[in-house]
Amino acid sequence: MNDFRLYQPTYYAFGKDTQHLAGELVKRFGGTKVLLHYGGGSVVRSGLLDQVKKSLVNEGIPYHELGGAVPNPRSDLVYEGIELCRKEGIDFVLSVGGGSAIDSGKAIALGVPYDGDFWDFFLGKAVPTDGLRHGCVLTLVATGTEGSNSAVIMHNDGMVKRGASTDFNRPAFSILNPELTYTLNPYQTACGIVDMMAHIMERYFTNTRDVDLTDRLCEGALKAIITAAPKVMENPRDYETRATLMWAGTIAHNGSLGVGRQEDWGSHNIEHELSALYDVAHGAGLSVVMPNWIKYVMDTNVMRFAQFAVRVWNCEMNFEDPKATALEGVAKLQAFNKSIGMPLTFADIGAREEDIPLMTEKTRSDAKGLQGNFVRMTKKDIEAIFRMCV
Amino acid sequence: MNDFRLYQPTYYAFGKDTQHLAGELVKRFGGTKVLLHYGGGSVVRSGLLDQVKKSLVNEGIPYHELGGAVPNPRSDLVYEGIELCRKEGIDFVLSVGGGSAIDSGKAIALGVPYDGDFWDFFLGKAVPTDGLRHGCVLTLVATGTEGSNSAVIMHNDGMVKRGASTDFNRPAFSILNPELTYTLNPYQTACGIVDMMAHIMERYFTNTRDVDLTDRLCEGALKAIITAAPKVMENPRDYETRATLMWAGTIAHNGSLGVGRQEDWGSHNIEHELSALYDVAHGAGLSVVMPNWIKYVMDTNVMRFAQFAVRVWNCEMNFEDPKATALEGVAKLQAFNKSIGMPLTFADIGAREEDIPLMTEKTRSDAKGLQGNFVRMTKKDIEAIFRMCV
Repeated sequence: MNDFRLYQPTYYAFGKDTQHLAGELVKRFGGTKVLLHYGGGSVVRSGLLDQVKKSLVNEGIPYHELGGAVPNPRSDLVYEGIELCRKEGIDFVLSVGGGSAIDSGKAIALGVPYDGDFWDFFLGKAVPTDGLRHGCVLTLVATGTEGSNSAVIMHNDGMVKRGASTDFNRPAFSILNPELTYTLNPYQTACGIVDMMAHIMERYFTNTRDVDLTDRLCEGALKAIITAAPKVMENPRDYETRATLMWAGTIAHNGSLGVGRQEDWGSHNIEHELSALYDVAHGAGLSVVMPNWIKYVMDTNVMRFAQFAVRVWNCEMNFEDPKATALEGVAKLQAFNKSIGMPLTFADIGAREEDIPLMTEKTRSDAKGLQGNFVRMTKKDIEAIFRMCV
Repeated sequence: MNDFRLYQPTYYAFGKDTQHLAGELVKRFGGTKVLLHYGGGSVVRSGLLDQVKKSLVNEGIPYHELGGAVPNPRSDLVYEGIELCRKEGIDFVLSVGGGSAIDSGKAIALGVPYDGDFWDFFLGKAVPTDGLRHGCVLTLVATGTEGSNSAVIMHNDGMVKRGASTDFNRPAFSILNPELTYTLNPYQTACGIVDMMAHIMERYFTNTRDVDLTDRLCEGALKAIITAAPKVMENPRDYETRATLMWAGTIAHNGSLGVGRQEDWGSHNIEHELSALYDVAHGAGLSVVMPNWIKYVMDTNVMRFAQFAVRVWNCEMNFEDPKATALEGVAKLQAFNKSIGMPLTFADIGAREEDIPLMTEKTRSDAKGLQGNFVRMTKKDIEAIFRMCV
């Protein structure tokens, strides 16, 4: 097990009607004037935004509104939010929505007390030393940003997508009401399921030894998600299943499952290029990429993938041929993804083989030109994985 | 799944040499003058206390010392600590040791800003609304207090043992260096293992439906502990195993595994009477009580105990007779406890059958005279369980 630091200060209010606690929680965590940040019309139409406003009013907390956060949230709205907060003396950012509104809110909160350009933090040119407090009311289960220390923003200049990780990104509170996710359509729901499973798998596939405890926590969370998935596809208004998925999505990415182990994140970075080029949902892209990544890197440590197959997918161990077991596990992962309507190939998402060199070139890599940790991949490796996806 | 609130603001610094971070972390969490609180001579003899002092000095943080915390930490030392903090203008309590030093430190931190008697919080006569910040350097893995919201204190008047749970009890930081637990003897180590497993089982045995996610997290943590136990008994200086147990002990009781489910705590409360009367270690008492509690309540929900047997203890499910499977699980739990040197009967701990009426009478119960949640036990039930332990 590796040494680690873990800091998860977020207060979670989980359950029915918890959105009405927004005002009370803003007050508890020191907010006196709020930026109410959200995306498009769904939180308005559903009446959720009005409920949140009412709870702020009930606590006597003034607020200013900033809507318009879009998927892959844009820098121009972040700049606008920072400006508004400074002008109005706002000290708390409350985001209502999914990953986009929350990440946009996190970036605004980082930028307000900073003299320079907030984008510095996303380029790694500066490290945050302060930030406004922020919280959220979650409506879409997928990214795990409601508990994570990260935020991802797309800069309008050149449409460059970058993430920043810092303890200041941890929400002071997150309001998690599973009922607010009833209206997610099957595609959004399935993308969220693939995304949260990928967050766990990026942690699970490691070369760090002696990680039995977190291995088993990861396996348990994955099994619970796999069990819940067909139920939610069958009945989108099943509270218990929505609750299981909502909490699973949070712990998948709030740090609990990755402590003490090297994480990978190769598949995520490869997938970003599919999202960027074809505007495909992140979860859908991961459904295509991750099984092929597994097949490509499998020989590095076949037993880890055999363990994944046996413990997560209930495959029987083939003691004569562990690789057969490992491959059976990937097949089950793909069959699962397909069963919830997720794509498996380039054709399924309208990606084109001729774009592979471009996407390979664009895939983020470190100073040594490498990507991922389980296997340190070269551009040649990345290209090979893209080709397997065709 | 039940609604829940979860707040785990503790910053964990886990790994080798982390004790040297104490000063830095006190500063990060706003401490400017420290009460350095500890128990007996072992932290002095090992040189740990000197290392912690040095790290405070390095950060220019003045401190006052208060040693003498004993198992079942006493109120008189808490009063002394509160007095000292007030007199010296101390704003941070840093405890170095096991559960006793840490719980004593928590009680001091609660008492300093409170006008009344700190014991009010432990009698339920008042609710904390403030508290000094506090942190710890952990040397004994068992109670989970390094991440929990609770503290247990014994009042010198009448030797009454009571707990208080509040968010103010959550440490600002916990320093967890597995190497500091190398010197725990086999008995202390085994007691800690039983205690942390009991913390998980008190959460696992529930009537709350649709808790698959936390079920599987509990099962995973238990399996990791069961796997680690024989290794640590064999080699007390095996870093990886000590690390697994240290982190397992923390998550067993920091709230992660109990969210959304009713917890039981009947066995804990029954055991407290064994500890009180015979000064037996809490873990040893639990080793006697909990298997018998399981047998006594089993018929309420045989399938839950069959699940425990199959998923935690690898028993084969007997589909014709699930109770046989459930009983096999308890037998395995008892065999496990015995294998690490833990007692199974009154005789093993020197308890006397003739004391059963007294202990039954003294066992804490609620206003309705009942105890526990999985089964709401009467005094008659409690007496029956004590008799099964003989």
